[in-house]
Amino acid sequence: MPPPAPNSAPHSAPAPALAATPQPPYWAVIFTSLRDERPGDGYGQTADRMVELGSRQPGFLGLESARGSDGLGVTVSYWSSLEAIAAWKAVAEHEAAQRAGRARWYHAFATRVARVEREAVFQR
Amino acid sequence: MPPPAPNSAPHSAPAPALAATPQPPYWAVIFTSLRDERPGDGYGQTADRMVELGSRQPGFLGLESARGSDGLGVTVSYWSSLEAIAAWKAVAEHEAAQRAGRARWYHAFATRVARVEREAVFQR
Repeated sequence: MPPPAPNSAPHSAPAPALAATPQPPYWAVIFTSLRDERPGDGYGQTADRMVELGSRQPGFLGLESARGSDGLGVTVSYWSSLEAIAAWKAVAEHEAAQRAGRARWYHAFATRVARVEREAVFQR
Repeated sequence: MPPPAPNSAPHSAPAPALAATPQPPYWAVIFTSLRDERPGDGYGQTADRMVELGSRQPGFLGLESARGSDGLGVTVSYWSSLEAIAAWKAVAEHEAAQRAGRARWYHAFATRVARVEREAVFQR
């Protein structure tokens, strides 16, 4: 199996892949959201751009994201430190996307910051 | 809107909702997986049953789950303690489902156990 592209992600990736994270401890940002699908609302482009931009941030370790047909989305990004998470949150273009999310795209969302203590991986 | 069919996956909730978790700290189990959709492979019924069974476990705080059309699924369950997570992992019917997952349903999966330190919720 070829290795995933460095910036692979739910939206732009050719094939889905699990994040190849290092040995714990590291950090996870669990972002869960409810949204209406409205073609032409700019969501897809911004989501792709945030994946591209976020995955180039210092301390970024990986991303796993899915949205079901019911509108519930779960995106988990992995980071080397709380400082790396704070720096990404404060990137200007990301702040603008966060404002648009509140104004237009999401009914509701939750952001949880968690310290990963254990990891187990299965590959057939 | 009619209620979804009982086994219409991923899960049996009538409408998607974010988990109503308490103030941190608490624990998250981040389960990400890759699978092929094969109608009739028993996955949907087992997934629904595990949600029903898991949500009755002591220490269960909530669940958020999505699977995209690309086959990548992200399910996060929330728990009051590591002991509650260990007890759920050891439930016999859940152990059987874990074996079936390795044997049949998943190409690959990762399970990460993380301590949630911060939470922010937005509701329009």
